[in-house]
Amino acid sequence: MSRPEFQLIDWIRGQVRDRAPVTLGIGDDAACLKPSSDRETLIAIDMLMEGVHFTFPLATPQLAGRKALAVNLSDIAAMAGRPTAAFVSVALPINRGMDFAKDVHAGLIQLADEYDVVVAGGDTNSWDGPLVISVTVVGEPIERSAVYRKGAKPGDWLFVTGGLGGSLSSGRHLTFPPRLREVEQLVSLVDLHAMLDISDGLAADMHHMLNASQVGALIEADQVPLTETAIREADFKTSLIHGLSDGEDFELLFAVSPDDGRLLLSDWRNETPVHKIGEISEALGARIRYSDGRIEPLPPLGWTHHLGVGKGLG
Amino acid sequence: MSRPEFQLIDWIRGQVRDRAPVTLGIGDDAACLKPSSDRETLIAIDMLMEGVHFTFPLATPQLAGRKALAVNLSDIAAMAGRPTAAFVSVALPINRGMDFAKDVHAGLIQLADEYDVVVAGGDTNSWDGPLVISVTVVGEPIERSAVYRKGAKPGDWLFVTGGLGGSLSSGRHLTFPPRLREVEQLVSLVDLHAMLDISDGLAADMHHMLNASQVGALIEADQVPLTETAIREADFKTSLIHGLSDGEDFELLFAVSPDDGRLLLSDWRNETPVHKIGEISEALGARIRYSDGRIEPLPPLGWTHHLGVGKGLG
Repeated sequence: MSRPEFQLIDWIRGQVRDRAPVTLGIGDDAACLKPSSDRETLIAIDMLMEGVHFTFPLATPQLAGRKALAVNLSDIAAMAGRPTAAFVSVALPINRGMDFAKDVHAGLIQLADEYDVVVAGGDTNSWDGPLVISVTVVGEPIERSAVYRKGAKPGDWLFVTGGLGGSLSSGRHLTFPPRLREVEQLVSLVDLHAMLDISDGLAADMHHMLNASQVGALIEADQVPLTETAIREADFKTSLIHGLSDGEDFELLFAVSPDDGRLLLSDWRNETPVHKIGEISEALGARIRYSDGRIEPLPPLGWTHHLGVGKGLG
Repeated sequence: MSRPEFQLIDWIRGQVRDRAPVTLGIGDDAACLKPSSDRETLIAIDMLMEGVHFTFPLATPQLAGRKALAVNLSDIAAMAGRPTAAFVSVALPINRGMDFAKDVHAGLIQLADEYDVVVAGGDTNSWDGPLVISVTVVGEPIERSAVYRKGAKPGDWLFVTGGLGGSLSSGRHLTFPPRLREVEQLVSLVDLHAMLDISDGLAADMHHMLNASQVGALIEADQVPLTETAIREADFKTSLIHGLSDGEDFELLFAVSPDDGRLLLSDWRNETPVHKIGEISEALGARIRYSDGRIEPLPPLGWTHHLGVGKGLG
């Protein structure tokens, strides 16, 4: 078997170690998993394409592979889940050779190891097109049940982790840490009513939570945590618009009761801050209040990729 | 939300119906599944690329979508599994428009419905490149445990379903029925020792079973069931070589005890035939016996795509 795909598969198998919940990993027609509990199984899937979600040489092959897993880990975090196994299918540019292919997988496997996720299968292809990576991640809820986009209640406080804006221009979209450790701490402290991860920008993604929960929200403009990049980049848009609409932040947006909100403000101990950015209202739609007291509608500004657009089905 | 991706996602959601084992389908950060039993979870993943695994207009968008699911259903069948849910990520050529995108998904969903598989999530992207479809299928073993590639024993009889050869030239690689109903009947009749689906050609894939099981095999040349296309296409290769090496047959190769083999030959009732093609030997390696008694080694001839090559990790 001298075909390069088999060499690559052998190399990948050498990099990973089957362990629970994987009972049969790479090398058969399908993988076998034995969940450790009777909880639900969480499944996230995301496809990343060269020229859309990353470009070379701004990204390295390792960072492209890393990001393809990281966006899925972020999805599992957003369900209040713990990832267990990952499956990787790739379309490899045939002219870039074996080292490139190994580097893509090495970047992915390194992140998988960091969060104890088993790479349990995949599909390795080559062609004369650009790099495409599709990753599926399996996980389980940290507690009895997962946290959905629906479930936010009028009066709830809205929080985000970390800071927003400038992820694409700073390169953070390639290196962001999925908020898995933060969510473990969150579920140990409070009852999360609704949660999602911010991939299309706070303004756009917030509407998914509001629509699913059939509620509205009032955001405090001066409470939206902005990254240094967003603040520095006040070129044609203001920093706030960067923070609301840049996308690829991969921070968590979540709703909790006011009591739990106060608990978070006093008891949260983590290098990643959490910020209260507003409150859920019974009145539908999203509004934003500026420091001068002015209140305006906050439309789902959204975020468009340079060459295309991408949106998950779930 | 006028972005075409959201329109497409809404359309897809209208085509599918959440049902067991899916407790949360399209529309959140991840899907939730509640397995009906405490059996293992089977997971298969395959990526298909335009120009490699299908070309237009030889394929229609519907058939491309159909094939992307069918190859994964075939993987689940090869584990003696029953598929339950599918996840679809696509890179859609931006210039082909919304009808093309719907057609790809319609072809996939039609096949999913045929086998009672729930489309429970995905990721919809567009770009200026060719169509790429990556599908992940979740399933569970029909009986207590799955059937692996390993497990074939010396003396076992080797069977294949259907006929081999000519799948690419006949177009059957786009329309083949995954052998899910056949495998339900097989597990009800016999104890399957080892099984896989033939995607790279019998000669190549048989070696995966032999290597995993640490055994060899003797194949009877005149017992290899050839499709009409393989027989008709005796151009530069003989029909037999077509049957052994064309690939994309998506038939099942399996090993059973001689007693179970005899039972199959007498009791098998299905429009898809099963053929005994040889026996497992203790001596390693694969050999083929011609009708004149000559025995020769049978190397893993394999099969190479026109623009690239593809191979699953599991």
